[in-house]
Amino acid sequence: MPTLPITQFVSQPGILDMGCGHPAPALMPVDAIKNASAACVRRYGSDALTYGASAGPGPLIEFLRQRIEKQEKRVLKSNEILITGGSSSGLDQWLTLYTRAGDTILVESPTYHLAVKLLQDHRLNLIPVPSDTEGLDVLALEAILTKLGKSGLQPRALYTVPTFGNPTGFSLGASRRERLVQLAVENEFVILEDDVYRELAFDGMAPPSLWSFSPSDAVVRLGSFSKSFAPGVRLGWLTAHSKVINRMATGGLLDSGGGINHFMALVMAEVCESGEYDMQIGRLRASYQERRDALHKELVQVLPDRCQASKPNGGFFIWLELPEEMAASELLGNAKKHGVSYLPGDIFHVDGRGANTVRLSFSMLSAEQLEEAARRLGRSIQEAGQFVAPSN
Amino acid sequence: MPTLPITQFVSQPGILDMGCGHPAPALMPVDAIKNASAACVRRYGSDALTYGASAGPGPLIEFLRQRIEKQEKRVLKSNEILITGGSSSGLDQWLTLYTRAGDTILVESPTYHLAVKLLQDHRLNLIPVPSDTEGLDVLALEAILTKLGKSGLQPRALYTVPTFGNPTGFSLGASRRERLVQLAVENEFVILEDDVYRELAFDGMAPPSLWSFSPSDAVVRLGSFSKSFAPGVRLGWLTAHSKVINRMATGGLLDSGGGINHFMALVMAEVCESGEYDMQIGRLRASYQERRDALHKELVQVLPDRCQASKPNGGFFIWLELPEEMAASELLGNAKKHGVSYLPGDIFHVDGRGANTVRLSFSMLSAEQLEEAARRLGRSIQEAGQFVAPSN
Repeated sequence: MPTLPITQFVSQPGILDMGCGHPAPALMPVDAIKNASAACVRRYGSDALTYGASAGPGPLIEFLRQRIEKQEKRVLKSNEILITGGSSSGLDQWLTLYTRAGDTILVESPTYHLAVKLLQDHRLNLIPVPSDTEGLDVLALEAILTKLGKSGLQPRALYTVPTFGNPTGFSLGASRRERLVQLAVENEFVILEDDVYRELAFDGMAPPSLWSFSPSDAVVRLGSFSKSFAPGVRLGWLTAHSKVINRMATGGLLDSGGGINHFMALVMAEVCESGEYDMQIGRLRASYQERRDALHKELVQVLPDRCQASKPNGGFFIWLELPEEMAASELLGNAKKHGVSYLPGDIFHVDGRGANTVRLSFSMLSAEQLEEAARRLGRSIQEAGQFVAPSN
Repeated sequence: MPTLPITQFVSQPGILDMGCGHPAPALMPVDAIKNASAACVRRYGSDALTYGASAGPGPLIEFLRQRIEKQEKRVLKSNEILITGGSSSGLDQWLTLYTRAGDTILVESPTYHLAVKLLQDHRLNLIPVPSDTEGLDVLALEAILTKLGKSGLQPRALYTVPTFGNPTGFSLGASRRERLVQLAVENEFVILEDDVYRELAFDGMAPPSLWSFSPSDAVVRLGSFSKSFAPGVRLGWLTAHSKVINRMATGGLLDSGGGINHFMALVMAEVCESGEYDMQIGRLRASYQERRDALHKELVQVLPDRCQASKPNGGFFIWLELPEEMAASELLGNAKKHGVSYLPGDIFHVDGRGANTVRLSFSMLSAEQLEEAARRLGRSIQEAGQFVAPSN
């Protein structure tokens, strides 16, 4: 019988994988978790092993509340934050309580493909909103809202990753942020702000979150320890209006099971209070910046003409545009023969566009591996280019 | 500012609480978790901190697979089991993927009130099926199915806690188990078997699970470490047809986040492999049996005539029937004045029945506390009886 896997990512021999948005194993905070687990048991004893407070344990909520309030310069009350099992878990809970099958949800396109899968699991009606290097195109959004209004369709929410976005790495521009929130208020839809890359800013500060300057019922903001600490802890948080937090904390799921991931939440409270969380953020930020630099520099060197690689200010991803006539999904087989892998950009598009785009993740491989991966990718695109005629 | 709670249960001074189905703090396996956390970090290192395999990590799946196969004498393949964040989390995931708002769900009545809350969060149409001391009334179920059939309503599922049930402690009789599964197959509904008390059998073996002798697509069985180990680990499992497991493991929630509670799942794998899980089950079983005995014995002594306390063969609960003219919810204020609390039985009834019933949990208090709680309850019922005229 084959051995069952332990981790989600299983490497393919000989392939440098830039497809997976997973963290580098060498960067995982093994010692911090070892120490915090022991400290958690010593400090909380049986309180860590019974049913936890439904909204999450007080010490973790209070740490995050103070940190967010200070960082984002917005008052955050303790009844405006909920501990989640990561951003997907928080999104899933909100969708269960606040949507019905068939509801219309606006989705930035391209966007995080597995959030789209989750939205589809809830059988929602997804309407793509185009984006560019400045993030979501708010003019296009206005036109879509007008059109929807004429059809009598009221969108329930808009899902977006406005800061160091997945898959593009682009961030929503400042004036677009303002306008997007205005549009949400005027049109009474909720912005589901997936904000998991905020702590991984390389060049100066991350832009302000939509949540930080919105009326409190306009935005549900999803945070996570997955990118800024370690995915295996399966914890995140959600900031929103107190009535949303209360509805979620008193729903069947959390009323029955107590806090979503109680023991780990108290372990994370220890991690946070000990200063290890900030140290890990510092380590990750420096490492990912180095990796972005290495990958971007090499891509600029090796990519054929008419290829365009973005240089994101944070997060995990470089977005690559191939010549229009090339289809990234068709190139993938050849790329793997050259020993490199990626995710074709069309899977991030709700409307099937983006055939000539590629998401490259620089989170998992070392700087040296990324340079080699870029060279392999360059060769495979060069090779493919010889067989594909430009369309003009 | 008031301190935020750490745990879900917050005790009220002077009150012996039999309302809460939470475990006794003194029984929580603090040392086992301390040792297993350290062992998990040593053994798995960064693999414990990245995204986990979507269905759960191999070592925990394999331990449970072998254990269940041996205990229940049914072949269990590794693709027929999923690690969940507890039974509520597993139920929630199944409901998202397999139901739509308005679907008809049959619900044993009385039943676990927070599962009902979860079903209601999914906006399902709940139809109660009565039960008695032998569990779900399958004759009544047949009549309901016939009636539904005539209205053209196809129930999607039936939710039941057939073994040491919550709230009654009763178990479904052997011939009823057979018949219930037949009815599910004939009428093409899924049995959602909430099976979290199985390991806490006091008097001989637990009855066979419905899952253990059913066609594999008839039953989704929900197991949990919450009752048999510790709620704070927020882990359970689900056994079902491989196509159900595959659908859940490849849904947006688990595809995005990886295994539901990865680090803790590997800690639990260490707990299981070290033998600590079996030892904890042994400890809990002995303690809860002692507590059941103490509470039941004292209740028989102190309860007024026309009160009937069940003596369950396992689980957490004694079910108390008061004289018909008494309403448990109205007595509660007086009971608290006497220093004792419980949950009125009507909250477990989907149809508002059960006004004269009471759920008493013996999981949290010591045998001595339970004896004192029984005496206080007896006095409060005696006192109330003086003001309530028998209806016949």
